[in-house]
Amino acid sequence: MDKQGLYQWQQGFLKLRSNKIFETVVIAIIVLSALMVGAKTYEETSRFTPILNLLDWAVTIFFLVEILIRLMAERRFRDFFKSGWNIFDFIIVVASLIPVENSETVLIARLLRVFRVMRLVSMVPELRMLMNALLKALPRMGYVALFMFIIFYIYGAVGSFLFHDINPFYWDNIAISVLTLFRIATFESWTQIMYETMEVHPWSWIYYVSFIFLSAFIFLNMMIGIVLETMQKESAAHELEQGEGEAADIKALRQGVDDVQAQLRRMEGLLQDREKSS
Amino acid sequence: MDKQGLYQWQQGFLKLRSNKIFETVVIAIIVLSALMVGAKTYEETSRFTPILNLLDWAVTIFFLVEILIRLMAERRFRDFFKSGWNIFDFIIVVASLIPVENSETVLIARLLRVFRVMRLVSMVPELRMLMNALLKALPRMGYVALFMFIIFYIYGAVGSFLFHDINPFYWDNIAISVLTLFRIATFESWTQIMYETMEVHPWSWIYYVSFIFLSAFIFLNMMIGIVLETMQKESAAHELEQGEGEAADIKALRQGVDDVQAQLRRMEGLLQDREKSS
Amino acid sequence: MDKQGLYQWQQGFLKLRSNKIFETVVIAIIVLSALMVGAKTYEETSRFTPILNLLDWAVTIFFLVEILIRLMAERRFRDFFKSGWNIFDFIIVVASLIPVENSETVLIARLLRVFRVMRLVSMVPELRMLMNALLKALPRMGYVALFMFIIFYIYGAVGSFLFHDINPFYWDNIAISVLTLFRIATFESWTQIMYETMEVHPWSWIYYVSFIFLSAFIFLNMMIGIVLETMQKESAAHELEQGEGEAADIKALRQGVDDVQAQLRRMEGLLQDREKSS
Amino acid sequence: MDKQGLYQWQQGFLKLRSNKIFETVVIAIIVLSALMVGAKTYEETSRFTPILNLLDWAVTIFFLVEILIRLMAERRFRDFFKSGWNIFDFIIVVASLIPVENSETVLIARLLRVFRVMRLVSMVPELRMLMNALLKALPRMGYVALFMFIIFYIYGAVGSFLFHDINPFYWDNIAISVLTLFRIATFESWTQIMYETMEVHPWSWIYYVSFIFLSAFIFLNMMIGIVLETMQKESAAHELEQGEGEAADIKALRQGVDDVQAQLRRMEGLLQDREKSS
Repeated sequence: MDKQGLYQWQQGFLKLRSNKIFETVVIAIIVLSALMVGAKTYEETSRFTPILNLLDWAVTIFFLVEILIRLMAERRFRDFFKSGWNIFDFIIVVASLIPVENSETVLIARLLRVFRVMRLVSMVPELRMLMNALLKALPRMGYVALFMFIIFYIYGAVGSFLFHDINPFYWDNIAISVLTLFRIATFESWTQIMYETMEVHPWSWIYYVSFIFLSAFIFLNMMIGIVLETMQKESAAHELEQGEGEAADIKALRQGVDDVQAQLRRMEGLLQDREKSS
Repeated sequence: MDKQGLYQWQQGFLKLRSNKIFETVVIAIIVLSALMVGAKTYEETSRFTPILNLLDWAVTIFFLVEILIRLMAERRFRDFFKSGWNIFDFIIVVASLIPVENSETVLIARLLRVFRVMRLVSMVPELRMLMNALLKALPRMGYVALFMFIIFYIYGAVGSFLFHDINPFYWDNIAISVLTLFRIATFESWTQIMYETMEVHPWSWIYYVSFIFLSAFIFLNMMIGIVLETMQKESAAHELEQGEGEAADIKALRQGVDDVQAQLRRMEGLLQDREKSS
Repeated sequence: MDKQGLYQWQQGFLKLRSNKIFETVVIAIIVLSALMVGAKTYEETSRFTPILNLLDWAVTIFFLVEILIRLMAERRFRDFFKSGWNIFDFIIVVASLIPVENSETVLIARLLRVFRVMRLVSMVPELRMLMNALLKALPRMGYVALFMFIIFYIYGAVGSFLFHDINPFYWDNIAISVLTLFRIATFESWTQIMYETMEVHPWSWIYYVSFIFLSAFIFLNMMIGIVLETMQKESAAHELEQGEGEAADIKALRQGVDDVQAQLRRMEGLLQDREKSS
Repeated sequence: MDKQGLYQWQQGFLKLRSNKIFETVVIAIIVLSALMVGAKTYEETSRFTPILNLLDWAVTIFFLVEILIRLMAERRFRDFFKSGWNIFDFIIVVASLIPVENSETVLIARLLRVFRVMRLVSMVPELRMLMNALLKALPRMGYVALFMFIIFYIYGAVGSFLFHDINPFYWDNIAISVLTLFRIATFESWTQIMYETMEVHPWSWIYYVSFIFLSAFIFLNMMIGIVLETMQKESAAHELEQGEGEAADIKALRQGVDDVQAQLRRMEGLLQDREKSS
């Protein structure tokens, strides 16, 4: 195949990829595949299993063809893998091609098919924007989560040391204690756990009340932190645009005053010249 | 009836519609109808049923007359149906005119009468403003709800695959799983469900903790999204108004500098003319 | 007593009222009275009742003297009652003077003594500021509460019609239904109520899920509404102050340009005069 | 040791302290000590107790050496204790040196070792920033907490007076009542407590609903208060920076107009001089 032919093929694929109807078909197939995943969870559908399996293969092949079209539309294969979304799509599609034989991998194959629903996020622009906003907030969230984990770890260790003998179900070791604390942070029947330990350590309510205050306080701060960061970015972006408004006005004003000064210098020069000549 | 007479009638209706006393009467009747709906839920009121039915008909006829007055006050009938609130009122009134005979439709008729309380929202301006604010936030909410639904759907399918055999009451199929997840998202006795599945899959706490984190995180982002959007709109509206303040000042300044430049040009012309003449 | 003497007395009371030590003593007495109220809730304190009663009378008399001092410090008695806080203090003090004889009014007298703790809010400036901020947010809260009540009322009526026969404990009449809905809005064991009605009406989960969404959504909007309103007021107040900064700069600029124009007009006049004279 | 030698030693310690590898080693040791604390909560680790004890002593000695290095790097010992973080580190290290003999102090020693995890916060800059932000919000939080405590105290006293005989477990005295109210504020099975008291006092739902409204409302206000305060500080800091942008522009403009006026005065002088001379 000569270069010219290759280029024409590529142009064809590019056209197809950006075609509105093609996009709608892809979204429809994703929704269909999601419904199929949901349908499989109903026991009554077991007699439709052959049809569902057939449809499943059809969807898998369609996705393979679709990803090949998108791959072909790129000038270089490398460019395709520069977008995180493309890599995500590629893994989902390739992974569903792996043949499933023994019963153990059936579950994994099923779970992989579930994640196809996530492809909807990569197809609808509004959802992609939301996803990006969530990903942007992640780094800051990371440190807050670490801070929160330290609090949980300390309270978990203390709880395990003090309450271990009262109820091992909640306080057996640090891992179980941290899970119990997560439960307390969601206010889930926490008083029942507290009343139990208060029978042995009457002052243990301080442990629970201080933990609830701390975790709610840090969570609050996390929320405010994200709000502030997002707002600062928004306002910085907004100012940059707006800068063309008021900033431009002030620039024009300065230019005007500079012009006046130049004109005055010329006039003063004229006057002084005449002064000398007269 | 000649055109002049029609016009006079219309003017009369318009006056009546915008009359403060008429408005107060309408609000009072709506509150009365709401109280009647509430009264019917008490069993002790069954002996007052004839009186309540009579009152109900009186309210229905009053609402019919009121909507006819508002309809008549419009120049063209079409204009009346341009407002969503009018359509809402019209449906509520017309639907309550349908005669109720068999016992099945009695319930529907009762429910329709309940929605008359919503007419209060269309009558009190402050409530109408609140309602409009809520409706404005809806489109953005739509995509966040879709995003959240995708998360629920994926976790629902995974939960149904993994935990189906442990407790079908919570995980029988994807629909029941999604309802169970909604329950978990409200922190409602979620640990009880978790401890149950942890006996079979000791690592299943990851499923629950990650879901709670994700759903709370997305809900948080939704909240911030709405706050930011509302704020941007507010600040844009505010700037437009304020523009008449500072922006006007700067405009006046530019005009002043322009005037100075024109004046200087004239003076320079004078000086140069003299130069030549001398 | 002559006017001069009265004036001197008044000055004395005014001095005493604004005395730092006097203020501290009043706060200490309020805290003491709060501790006494708390102490009375312990059964073991019954043998100290005579002492507590004595102390109670001492506090009552101290408060009476204190309020008389503050009353005397005013020029006219009417001025004292212009402040809401003074009226509050006056009612608390006067009400505790009413003699308690029969056992029924003992409870009311006790409750009145509890509200003395609220006097702490009127004495500490930081708490008074917080209280004022809360009161400022009330009017807006009022309409949101009304809106929320309409939602609760509609859902309450619908719930009472549909679920009355399933469990009268939760849905007997509209009042009980609204209380049940408030419980559901706080996520308190709401699934238990839902599973019960879902046995009869399998689709009733729509009722619960839509209600939770609506109530959370409106509550969210309320929060944002208050945040926005408080922020707008803050920024308006801030701009007013700041106005003396940038706005003053721009005003000075305009003055400067005006001066330049006046000067130029004078000069042009000079030039034109000479033109004519030459 | 002469002064020169001392200075060289100090420089060496300073170099070591700011060494990236040294910092990483310290963080690794802290994490190791945290894992050891966690490990001790597992019963299965009892046979590793000798090894854990040995490691514990190694960590304690390492921390002692590390703090001595940081102490030595300061010019004067006093400077070291000026930072709150240093004092915190010093107490943790010195307290773990106290020999533990009898079984009672073993628990205290264990708890002290748990707090070593907090040293991670002082070592990682991002966590230190978060901690500082939390500490900054504390003073304002203090007054809100006091306000909230007054509300809890009043409701606690009222609850104790009214419901004492119904269920002493929840309402025995003011301390227990306040703990019960904290439970109600977290929505923890509050309806169960309410239904109990409503059997005796049918109107007691007012007590619970008003309390939930008040506590949620104040908590909300607290959140807004902190958001606003943090934002004001941020915007004030931002304006200070930005001041060099627009404010500088306007300053330059004023300078330009002043120059024009001076120039015009000179020219007018020239013109007037000639007037006289001619």
